[in-house]
Amino acid sequence: MTPDQAAEIAAQRRQSAATRRPTVAALEAVIYEPIAVLDRGFVRVVDYMGDDGAVVQAARVSYGRGTKSVRDDAGLIAYLLRHRHTTPFEMCEIKYHVKLPVFVARQWIRHRTANVNEISARYSVVEDEFYVPAPEHLAAQSVVNRQGRGEVLQGEEAASVLALLEEEARRSYARYGQLLNEGPGGKPLDPDRKGLARELARMNLTLNVYTQWYWKIDLHNLLHFLSLRADPHAQYEIRAYAEAMLETVKRWVPLVHAAFEEHGLGGARFSAKALAVVRRLVAGETVAQGGSGLGKGEWRELMTLLGREC
Amino acid sequence: MTPDQAAEIAAQRRQSAATRRPTVAALEAVIYEPIAVLDRGFVRVVDYMGDDGAVVQAARVSYGRGTKSVRDDAGLIAYLLRHRHTTPFEMCEIKYHVKLPVFVARQWIRHRTANVNEISARYSVVEDEFYVPAPEHLAAQSVVNRQGRGEVLQGEEAASVLALLEEEARRSYARYGQLLNEGPGGKPLDPDRKGLARELARMNLTLNVYTQWYWKIDLHNLLHFLSLRADPHAQYEIRAYAEAMLETVKRWVPLVHAAFEEHGLGGARFSAKALAVVRRLVAGETVAQGGSGLGKGEWRELMTLLGREC
Amino acid sequence: MTPDQAAEIAAQRRQSAATRRPTVAALEAVIYEPIAVLDRGFVRVVDYMGDDGAVVQAARVSYGRGTKSVRDDAGLIAYLLRHRHTTPFEMCEIKYHVKLPVFVARQWIRHRTANVNEISARYSVVEDEFYVPAPEHLAAQSVVNRQGRGEVLQGEEAASVLALLEEEARRSYARYGQLLNEGPGGKPLDPDRKGLARELARMNLTLNVYTQWYWKIDLHNLLHFLSLRADPHAQYEIRAYAEAMLETVKRWVPLVHAAFEEHGLGGARFSAKALAVVRRLVAGETVAQGGSGLGKGEWRELMTLLGREC
Amino acid sequence: MTPDQAAEIAAQRRQSAATRRPTVAALEAVIYEPIAVLDRGFVRVVDYMGDDGAVVQAARVSYGRGTKSVRDDAGLIAYLLRHRHTTPFEMCEIKYHVKLPVFVARQWIRHRTANVNEISARYSVVEDEFYVPAPEHLAAQSVVNRQGRGEVLQGEEAASVLALLEEEARRSYARYGQLLNEGPGGKPLDPDRKGLARELARMNLTLNVYTQWYWKIDLHNLLHFLSLRADPHAQYEIRAYAEAMLETVKRWVPLVHAAFEEHGLGGARFSAKALAVVRRLVAGETVAQGGSGLGKGEWRELMTLLGREC
Repeated sequence: MTPDQAAEIAAQRRQSAATRRPTVAALEAVIYEPIAVLDRGFVRVVDYMGDDGAVVQAARVSYGRGTKSVRDDAGLIAYLLRHRHTTPFEMCEIKYHVKLPVFVARQWIRHRTANVNEISARYSVVEDEFYVPAPEHLAAQSVVNRQGRGEVLQGEEAASVLALLEEEARRSYARYGQLLNEGPGGKPLDPDRKGLARELARMNLTLNVYTQWYWKIDLHNLLHFLSLRADPHAQYEIRAYAEAMLETVKRWVPLVHAAFEEHGLGGARFSAKALAVVRRLVAGETVAQGGSGLGKGEWRELMTLLGREC
Repeated sequence: MTPDQAAEIAAQRRQSAATRRPTVAALEAVIYEPIAVLDRGFVRVVDYMGDDGAVVQAARVSYGRGTKSVRDDAGLIAYLLRHRHTTPFEMCEIKYHVKLPVFVARQWIRHRTANVNEISARYSVVEDEFYVPAPEHLAAQSVVNRQGRGEVLQGEEAASVLALLEEEARRSYARYGQLLNEGPGGKPLDPDRKGLARELARMNLTLNVYTQWYWKIDLHNLLHFLSLRADPHAQYEIRAYAEAMLETVKRWVPLVHAAFEEHGLGGARFSAKALAVVRRLVAGETVAQGGSGLGKGEWRELMTLLGREC
Repeated sequence: MTPDQAAEIAAQRRQSAATRRPTVAALEAVIYEPIAVLDRGFVRVVDYMGDDGAVVQAARVSYGRGTKSVRDDAGLIAYLLRHRHTTPFEMCEIKYHVKLPVFVARQWIRHRTANVNEISARYSVVEDEFYVPAPEHLAAQSVVNRQGRGEVLQGEEAASVLALLEEEARRSYARYGQLLNEGPGGKPLDPDRKGLARELARMNLTLNVYTQWYWKIDLHNLLHFLSLRADPHAQYEIRAYAEAMLETVKRWVPLVHAAFEEHGLGGARFSAKALAVVRRLVAGETVAQGGSGLGKGEWRELMTLLGREC
Repeated sequence: MTPDQAAEIAAQRRQSAATRRPTVAALEAVIYEPIAVLDRGFVRVVDYMGDDGAVVQAARVSYGRGTKSVRDDAGLIAYLLRHRHTTPFEMCEIKYHVKLPVFVARQWIRHRTANVNEISARYSVVEDEFYVPAPEHLAAQSVVNRQGRGEVLQGEEAASVLALLEEEARRSYARYGQLLNEGPGGKPLDPDRKGLARELARMNLTLNVYTQWYWKIDLHNLLHFLSLRADPHAQYEIRAYAEAMLETVKRWVPLVHAAFEEHGLGGARFSAKALAVVRRLVAGETVAQGGSGLGKGEWRELMTLLGREC
């Protein structure tokens, strides 16, 4: 971050006004502050609407706050989540400013129920910032999960991969400047050249270049996003953002967060056949994969859920 | 249905053309035919796009059909559904023509991810058709479920409720004609009156009057709709439509339907605490509600799922 | 409104907290206060996120507020609106609590890009409130616009229509109580009856019964809603709500409101042929409908826009 | 395209079945066939639902086809489009298979009201195909439009830009293979290395690498997409796709296409102040920018629309 940007953020944090709206002190404490993610990225809350009480208020369609005791409110929120009454959670909204590599942005944007404003590489010159993974995240292709990563690269292979990524990032940006015909401070590299248009020059940047956006979403759709992206099956790089955001949710709507840990992230879905197996096991029967009606993959997933070896 | 309407439907069913698109014979067999729902309603398929193969094709982003053996396709479809890879299911689309009471339409329209064209009561005169429940559906307020119905009304009470609903429906429509100043065949009742505008006169109709719409939705969102509306907690009247539509899904995409029965309708979700209880039960422990960490409601739901008394 | 409801609203208005978020004093001045619409309805702002500056900030993807002079900000906002750069307007969000007749709610809900929580008539007993139009809004069917209303009813016809609507509203609610077997204070009318379930009894209410909801939407979609519903072609009853909401937009985001008056509500769209006619007129030519290439309807609309008789 | 891919497409084109659904011969004639776009991309229709008649049918909520004479249908369709009755256009749906550079995909995906399945670079190895612009599309940054391109690069500058882009594309793919440790035919380059996971190796590809997706959208939202992306302000590369798709719309729904040319693409929107200027000009007044109330930018746009120099 440049000193100017840091100053802008500090100025935002100094502003204060009286409001009649619901306000959440624990979130106000960190609002505007960037939470570091990956090597050069961040996510920061820049605005929010509503709190735990707003969920309760909408569920009750009340004239006032609609909240009762914390215990009652927590119970209602858990009930709503458990029975898929999702609309009251849509009554809260949050806005983030995110700095993230383009290949992460490409996964993220697949979630369509959000509002997005991304910095324009047609209009602005992209900054010289590229994601390079930490050594512990340089992994080989997984042999069991065909779309995940397996063991971490070691020794010379790791070192040469890292060196290559770093060299390519430097080179990619140098070439971008050449295409634009722009040197440091925006000066022409060659006064006899015009430079390629920005909307074209960007095409030679690599997918680990950082971009930025404002991203705004309601709480129901945010929980859905987090249930997919804070999941161990998600790619590490987007999961790192999801986990940082989960902490902001905990500050913002603690009752909803607790219910989500219990009924969303921490729970599991059973198929009809898996449920039949569980019933037999609970009744004391011995069940093997062969007689379970489940395929090997689903059987393995079930045994893991039940804490059994298989 | 009037003879004219029946003739229009028959004409649709007689039309035939050659197409290069994926075609599903089992659905073509019933296309355009109204399936009766409630006393005067119906739902009929009027168009569709894609089939089981289109889900597979999209998951594989193939140049051709992308399908392999039925066994492989079924396995892939079940895998996608189980792991919440929902986008391939959005590649199929279906369009229904539905005739339904307004109070059912009001629940239905809450599902926003669909396309709708409803008949306009500003433009057309509404027809004289009202829903009156069959005696076996006249139930009292439930005492356990605060938003459901309980035991069926009997004897004199049932008879008088039914009589009242029938009388009111007749009266509601007669008053509507008076407001419009329109008698049978659209003739003015009183030549000296202008009649109230249609957009105003409709406000005096009761919520059980029938309306009609074209409703179009992709397969992923349809399954979500059906998982909520074919559920025993849904109001009987909308569930009757959902169940009729489920039959059309079975004809249209049999592999997806089977996976949905297994992983959607037939399965269940367990919370983190419920999962912990299941693990203890499977390990042979005795667990009581008191020591389970679950509230009474959730405990009762869990015991029912596990086939145990509580 | 009951005294309890008024007290709840007063309590909301008394709450105050410090916030670092953007705050709009002109909107805070009226927040929570019901604005009366129709005979018994209202709309009131219950929360909001963002201000004029949030639009500018998102368009510039800035670290801080992103605003410059009011003149620059106004210019940028008008530019965005004129060139259909709609995403920055999605960065502001507003939440309303609305009390409205069911037939208005049915038109309103057609706008799918909003979040809604409506009071449940499965769970709660509906209140005894029905919309009855003021005499000046009792109009006949329009003879030129097939889905609008024409001249206002007069004399004996108006009086008898009004009397009928009032009588029917009273009757509708009395019958509802009979079906529920509930008298004043929720007491059973007949101790030997069980009463019909709420989800069924409601079907006999008329479409002018009032309902309530929380409705939350982003500024871009709100402007789209208002451009359709504050339009003279919209039915008077929903237009009355749209006009009240337009006033809240003016308080909330005055620069956006001004740009919307100029480029949205106050402007007009010309077809290719209409544009050709305008070019000829501006060049001093005389053009008649016959030689214009326009149909009679479109010609009439064009002449009206140009302030000419036709 | 590989011979296998061509064979798969040919097989799709040979399939034929009888259907009772609406069928459009002019679109069937080209269905599945790739339309070349840019140097290595394509767009091809792979499925569709509905036709011009389906728009009419939905607007009339009819039991049968609902169509009358072509003249009446064309008139109704133009009326709907002119008065923003958009829902009947949502009743038609089309599905495309598209091959496009990643930087184009990033613009395209901003349109959220569509269904997308993109090829996964976590699961599959990306192919060696990169977009390199034709010389006539290598333009400098525009000096008047800050987010567009200006004059075409010439001579040595053009040649060196082109050479750089070609060299970088080759190099980018070679480095990708090194990271994956995969040579031609998927063989390991170095048997002692594991290779980096696909989900990581892709990050070093440049933004002009080609990707593919299935993209499905309803006709209303497609027209909105085309009105923005077939517009001269859109970047050339995405406009090339939009123009190819516009031709498929013409084959599919000729009446809608004609109305869209007239009321969408060919028309223009006037602000309130611009409309006031037009009225004065039509009345024979002389108006200059200074006295018009319009800013310079808007004045220039208006004069261009009216076919006047400024």
